[in-house]
Amino acid sequence: MKPIKRRLLTPGPTMVPERVLEALSRPTLYHRSPEFKEIFLETRKLLGKIMRTEGEVLILTSSGTGAMEAAVANLFNPGDSAVVVVGGKFGQRWEELCRTHGVNPIVVNVEWGRAVDPAEVERALSENPGVKGVLIQICETSTGTVHDVKEIGKILRNFPDVLLVADGITAYGVYDIPTDEWGIDVAITGSQKALMTPPGLAVITLNEKAVNRLVEKPRTYYFNLKKEIKQQKKGQTAYTTATNLVVALNEALKMILKEGIENVAKRHAILAEATRAGVKAMGLELLSYSPANGVTAVLAPEGINGQDVVKIARERYGITIAGGQEHLKGKIFRLSHMGYVDQFDVLTGLEVTELALKELGYSKFKFGDSVKAAMEVFYSANL
Amino acid sequence: MKPIKRRLLTPGPTMVPERVLEALSRPTLYHRSPEFKEIFLETRKLLGKIMRTEGEVLILTSSGTGAMEAAVANLFNPGDSAVVVVGGKFGQRWEELCRTHGVNPIVVNVEWGRAVDPAEVERALSENPGVKGVLIQICETSTGTVHDVKEIGKILRNFPDVLLVADGITAYGVYDIPTDEWGIDVAITGSQKALMTPPGLAVITLNEKAVNRLVEKPRTYYFNLKKEIKQQKKGQTAYTTATNLVVALNEALKMILKEGIENVAKRHAILAEATRAGVKAMGLELLSYSPANGVTAVLAPEGINGQDVVKIARERYGITIAGGQEHLKGKIFRLSHMGYVDQFDVLTGLEVTELALKELGYSKFKFGDSVKAAMEVFYSANL
Repeated sequence: MKPIKRRLLTPGPTMVPERVLEALSRPTLYHRSPEFKEIFLETRKLLGKIMRTEGEVLILTSSGTGAMEAAVANLFNPGDSAVVVVGGKFGQRWEELCRTHGVNPIVVNVEWGRAVDPAEVERALSENPGVKGVLIQICETSTGTVHDVKEIGKILRNFPDVLLVADGITAYGVYDIPTDEWGIDVAITGSQKALMTPPGLAVITLNEKAVNRLVEKPRTYYFNLKKEIKQQKKGQTAYTTATNLVVALNEALKMILKEGIENVAKRHAILAEATRAGVKAMGLELLSYSPANGVTAVLAPEGINGQDVVKIARERYGITIAGGQEHLKGKIFRLSHMGYVDQFDVLTGLEVTELALKELGYSKFKFGDSVKAAMEVFYSANL
Repeated sequence: MKPIKRRLLTPGPTMVPERVLEALSRPTLYHRSPEFKEIFLETRKLLGKIMRTEGEVLILTSSGTGAMEAAVANLFNPGDSAVVVVGGKFGQRWEELCRTHGVNPIVVNVEWGRAVDPAEVERALSENPGVKGVLIQICETSTGTVHDVKEIGKILRNFPDVLLVADGITAYGVYDIPTDEWGIDVAITGSQKALMTPPGLAVITLNEKAVNRLVEKPRTYYFNLKKEIKQQKKGQTAYTTATNLVVALNEALKMILKEGIENVAKRHAILAEATRAGVKAMGLELLSYSPANGVTAVLAPEGINGQDVVKIARERYGITIAGGQEHLKGKIFRLSHMGYVDQFDVLTGLEVTELALKELGYSKFKFGDSVKAAMEVFYSANL
């Protein structure tokens, strides 16, 4: 007997609301039509509201990695140095992008699962005068860890020439992040995470300082941010954009603003707290010492391969959760709770974890233990 | 903070699979087109397979009640008598339909929540020679009770002139019912229950005996079954049918046949067993002494109004469960588990029941108790 329902509890792509899918399937618009132009301009504005920035908001037809590359290729010249916080796979990606584009990465290594100590970033900057930027994740998705970007923004007030470039791919729509207030000069996100839209669009914002730092000749043709700014101000894009995805994103952003970004953030905080309580009630431990509100990384118990939990959840129960990456493969599994997720989805994630662990012979809990713990969180949080 | 997801756990309309919704939204077909004709004929065949009958299968554009009226109006003449089993709201509906069409109902009253004793039906038939039919529900949805129609079919072998007319609206697709083998002469169902399709279509099947009993001049214009048989054999309908719904139903029936009707029935049996175990683990009791596998009617605990459970579940948690009807209003609430439902949906239904009851001050359980009991059923059933 096969599972009949497929549920997506991964840290992207995430589940998409029905009305966003409906918007996605509306007749395709011509990307140069006045009708689309209006939707495009509105979508930029809605993004600015949610990301709380007065800066330029650019929509790119790419994954989030495309926007990361756009940042590195458009803001730095070969030979420039940038401090890169590496505490997981996506920190590594910043480092790789720097090397690809001839930027010298000054790596601040952090144990995977720990948040960077902002003082370490400050020290790297002080020891390396002339550094042009700090590249960091707000949330490091691979370890489910949130870095203290607000504090790093404060430190950067003393380094006026340094650009703060923050990958907020699994942070925007999970937290209420005042981009400008925190001094994030360049913020990046993607459609397929907490923005509740299918994959295919990335977002990059640039404040005035960042716009002024855009290089004359970026070493990329497709991701030319100067060109994009010029076009997108008019509701156009340099190249053909994914019009149906933009229409879908527009719908999703309106849902977020209707719920209210503070409420959305509060909901994610409660969902994450309940997940952590549920995990602990199974006798399990979190990987992260600074757990994020979008995804929870759980250490697989002694003798159990985390990939087997993922495999059983998907193959036997139709529920996709995520495994570990790089050296964490097999050591952890990850339950996502970002985007179009409510308390009953979180409980489903815990239930399938219990079922898979039981099948794998782990027995330090009774069925329902994690549900009880999570429900108590939900009930007292009045969700 | 409002709930963001709406879930339908009522005994119809039920949740509709994504691919059925996709089929529903395909471009509307002309009801006299060759393309639609082919789909219509195939849909009749698929229904015959699922309902396990070689008889005529007619698709009507109406609710299930329309098919019930069609049966009464086309199979009996004014002045005829029929034995009617009344053990709930839908038994009452048979009685009302009889009175509307001048048929004399010989009512076998059953306490709501009990299955009829087949011997009672036999007695009614013996005491009333000349009775033309027995009208019954396979499942009485209002009380979540299953009648032993198989046994009644056996009894009717001794009454060759009596038609067995069975309302299987919440039974087909929940159970594997061999319509012909059980001696059901006329079977009725609807699209919006276990057939996983939105409301709007009813199905009525007639074996040869029933076809031969169709009256010359039914007291209804719209539900003229002789006319429909003639048309539907050709892939037509007497009047315009709901073409998009037929296309959707076609898709849903293929899903059922792909899972296999035996597997579908087994799944429903396990979902129902787990629901009952969960309900009892909360210290609650079932209304029914013969509980059906499609919907579970739960007695509200002392001092709590069942309607309040329904209200909290819907308004606070976005989950629609059903209340009681007629004199059961307030005394029960009903959790449905038919159609596009899996174990995680059942657990969600139990969780929202726990949350609502806790809010109403009922405290004979701890959060997660019902989930634990249900998960144990699922796990040992290997679902």
